[in-house]
Amino acid sequence: MIRNGKQVNLNGKCSSSSKVLTGETMNPYVKQIQYAVRGAIVQRAGILEKELAKGAIKPYEKVTKANIGDAHALGMVPLTFPRQVIAMCVCPELLETSNFPADAKAKARRILNETKGHSMGAYTDSQGIEGIRINVAKYISERDGHKADPSTIFLTGGASQGIKGILKLLQTGVNTGNGRAGVMIPIPQYPLYSATLSELNSYQINYYLDEANGWRLDIGELKRALNEARPHCVPRALCVINPGNPTGQVLPYENIQDIIKFCHEEELVLLADEVYQANVYGEGLEFHSFKKVLRDLGPDYDNFELISFHSTSKGFLGECGFRGGYMEVVGMEEEVKFQLKKMISASLCSCTTGQAMMDCLVSPPQPGDESYDTFLNEKTKVLQSLKERAKLVAETFNSMDGIQCNEVVGAMYAFPQVFIPRKAQEEAKARGMHPDSFYAIQLLEKTGLCVVPGNGFGQRDGTFHFRLTILPSIDTLKPLFEHFKAFHQDFMDKYRDDPNSSL
Amino acid sequence: MIRNGKQVNLNGKCSSSSKVLTGETMNPYVKQIQYAVRGAIVQRAGILEKELAKGAIKPYEKVTKANIGDAHALGMVPLTFPRQVIAMCVCPELLETSNFPADAKAKARRILNETKGHSMGAYTDSQGIEGIRINVAKYISERDGHKADPSTIFLTGGASQGIKGILKLLQTGVNTGNGRAGVMIPIPQYPLYSATLSELNSYQINYYLDEANGWRLDIGELKRALNEARPHCVPRALCVINPGNPTGQVLPYENIQDIIKFCHEEELVLLADEVYQANVYGEGLEFHSFKKVLRDLGPDYDNFELISFHSTSKGFLGECGFRGGYMEVVGMEEEVKFQLKKMISASLCSCTTGQAMMDCLVSPPQPGDESYDTFLNEKTKVLQSLKERAKLVAETFNSMDGIQCNEVVGAMYAFPQVFIPRKAQEEAKARGMHPDSFYAIQLLEKTGLCVVPGNGFGQRDGTFHFRLTILPSIDTLKPLFEHFKAFHQDFMDKYRDDPNSSL
Repeated sequence: MIRNGKQVNLNGKCSSSSKVLTGETMNPYVKQIQYAVRGAIVQRAGILEKELAKGAIKPYEKVTKANIGDAHALGMVPLTFPRQVIAMCVCPELLETSNFPADAKAKARRILNETKGHSMGAYTDSQGIEGIRINVAKYISERDGHKADPSTIFLTGGASQGIKGILKLLQTGVNTGNGRAGVMIPIPQYPLYSATLSELNSYQINYYLDEANGWRLDIGELKRALNEARPHCVPRALCVINPGNPTGQVLPYENIQDIIKFCHEEELVLLADEVYQANVYGEGLEFHSFKKVLRDLGPDYDNFELISFHSTSKGFLGECGFRGGYMEVVGMEEEVKFQLKKMISASLCSCTTGQAMMDCLVSPPQPGDESYDTFLNEKTKVLQSLKERAKLVAETFNSMDGIQCNEVVGAMYAFPQVFIPRKAQEEAKARGMHPDSFYAIQLLEKTGLCVVPGNGFGQRDGTFHFRLTILPSIDTLKPLFEHFKAFHQDFMDKYRDDPNSSL
Repeated sequence: MIRNGKQVNLNGKCSSSSKVLTGETMNPYVKQIQYAVRGAIVQRAGILEKELAKGAIKPYEKVTKANIGDAHALGMVPLTFPRQVIAMCVCPELLETSNFPADAKAKARRILNETKGHSMGAYTDSQGIEGIRINVAKYISERDGHKADPSTIFLTGGASQGIKGILKLLQTGVNTGNGRAGVMIPIPQYPLYSATLSELNSYQINYYLDEANGWRLDIGELKRALNEARPHCVPRALCVINPGNPTGQVLPYENIQDIIKFCHEEELVLLADEVYQANVYGEGLEFHSFKKVLRDLGPDYDNFELISFHSTSKGFLGECGFRGGYMEVVGMEEEVKFQLKKMISASLCSCTTGQAMMDCLVSPPQPGDESYDTFLNEKTKVLQSLKERAKLVAETFNSMDGIQCNEVVGAMYAFPQVFIPRKAQEEAKARGMHPDSFYAIQLLEKTGLCVVPGNGFGQRDGTFHFRLTILPSIDTLKPLFEHFKAFHQDFMDKYRDDPNSSL
């Protein structure tokens, strides 16, 4: 018996096999989300790991998950100071009994004093603990040479939570057709942006970074992208990732200035994803924050709407699991800021341990403090080692036929281009796969190395890439690259284009 | 010079005073969010606190924030065991050096073994650490006498994050008119529900709890609400909060059975907010989980779609700041579950310390373990004291003329009705305030006690309530109630209805 197209029992009730929520009925915008950083290839890597753990024989002894910027998972040892501080915050009896250094104790006491009921178990203000926001503002002020205001700081659960919140705020309320909000994002991009825009069914405006010129961000390309998009949406914002993810470039000062001027002229809110601000390796290069360049432009830009995001997950801490982050929201209309606070308050607050981790990032031990030498030593070692790996990775790729990689001058990833032979492209197509997914899955099966195919980040049509984080240790990377080279050679040999072919 | 309604400089650029994002242009659905638990009265309480700290003279020495179920903020001492475990997870050197008990050390070692790279700083799987999900499933299995499956468990940042995610999944993609998803929520409700539905512009279907009968949930009322809503939306789900927030009732077994049958017949997904499952005080009353009652109904209901939410923030831990939570997702179509996982993966993972806190909640010390006696003693004391306070609070309110309060048999709040005199209602109206907001703000100014007015939770038209958490200590509550009584008496005297009035 059928009712409303559903199986109905004789007693008139629907049978237990009918579901309310199905692939057909569920939120269609959730379905259109793509997030390759944790996609099919990564899930396959998880299965291979479990098989290895059960004693399966593979051409490799372990799976190396270079798909995600997860430093500790790849063997980085946590810095000592922040962990001591947070342990004491969590378990205050340690303040009396442990051998932790005086400056760590002092910071833990201060943070506890700033919590409600002297407990990390209390909710904080939705915007975050005030004392920590004050320290974030100090950090920004010192970084930029321009004053930052604690009332503009929001502590967030990683940078992701802040980015998602701002993208939500930017919506027009219309979720179909050309009344939708349009948001400009780089291609290639970090897929949190495309995933969030998909979920909101917002209009994604792609601007392409110039691979031939070190992933340069070209203002002309911004204009092209915006002009083409105007008939299809209400353009609201431009997102920039600096240093770049997955592209590893670092924006020059003048370029940042031009981006700000572009947003000013075109009436766009600027979202600056600056989570890799401590990760700059290129000789003579420097990180310039959008906030600093904005303030350098003087009072004409006082009302410019800029939101900058930072995180404890990257840089030299790599403390992803703590979910610490902040956003600095400047130039936002008071009414909108009020609405932002209200929206955030319904989610109560970000976790206190993540907030404390952020305090350690922005207010580290100072010269003369008991922990200073250790902290500086650990920090320097991490950053120095990342610099070496950045160099090694790009050089290795460039030594391989059919791969071309821009210098990794910032962030934590290489995004090399693979010139996938036509035959391999055809075989991928026959299997219903994207050519770079086809390449990446074979790389995984043959070497145990898990990378993310370029289509997860976006790339110019007909080009193929993958993202590899530079976080595995040199000792892991060197032998792994030998296997990589052998795999790549075999792959290219197997699918080599017929030299007599017309194409 | 004006262009597109905006001030333009002589050089043709828009003046710096024009904003892209304004109260007019921003996401209108964010604007319609209401979240009184952290609303205007709470903000006023924060200002009063700061004034007191600066030495201002008030009729009270401190502000008591009874607006939110935040146990530690109100003086609860954290339980020892979970804090020791998490401190060692954060700072593994403590495993070697501290005097922490063996079972706490064993748990910390186990959790670290389950993280990537043996570090709390690594991202976890988006669904949460597998070993912790296995422990959650064990806890549910033992609680219900029916097997739970770790693959159905999702660790979340508090219960809120899970609830928001599921409500998002339930959307139809249409965000205006009668194609919108309809979600049934109790009135009074915890405002996370209404706030999230506002943000999604989903259709809110109100069903009223029966105040005259201890806030009973009546199936006839569910039917009325659903039938009235059908022309306006696509009904998708029913939310139930048990034990009730803000209403403090505990649902009887048969009632839960009827609710499940109702959803089965009406083809609704059931969302069970069970974060107060450990908070049952009424004599002879018992918490029955929806999952248990569902499985007791037998194989006819095997495919029933139920999502149950739990949290480390309530119960006897009260560890709100750690943002630990889980949801158990049963009967969900595989395709939808896949989409849910993908959606969650774009936010990476919930914080590791919150996940570890959840492990301590679901897998506490057992008889014979070194920490068992202390743990049991601390837990019993917390729950016993809450029971006393629940009784004291309701009795005190019922001793006051013009206030009537149902027994608080569960959760952490009283939600008494105040019979606000007509004159006071008129004065509130003249000031543009809701009558119970008018009452609550005066209560705050006169006594320092911060409660949330009933309109923030919803109530039958013409009735007025407020929510007060029972979390302040007895020593705080007793003198506070003396001030409350005096305030209430003055308020009633001042606005007493003229006995000769016709109404």
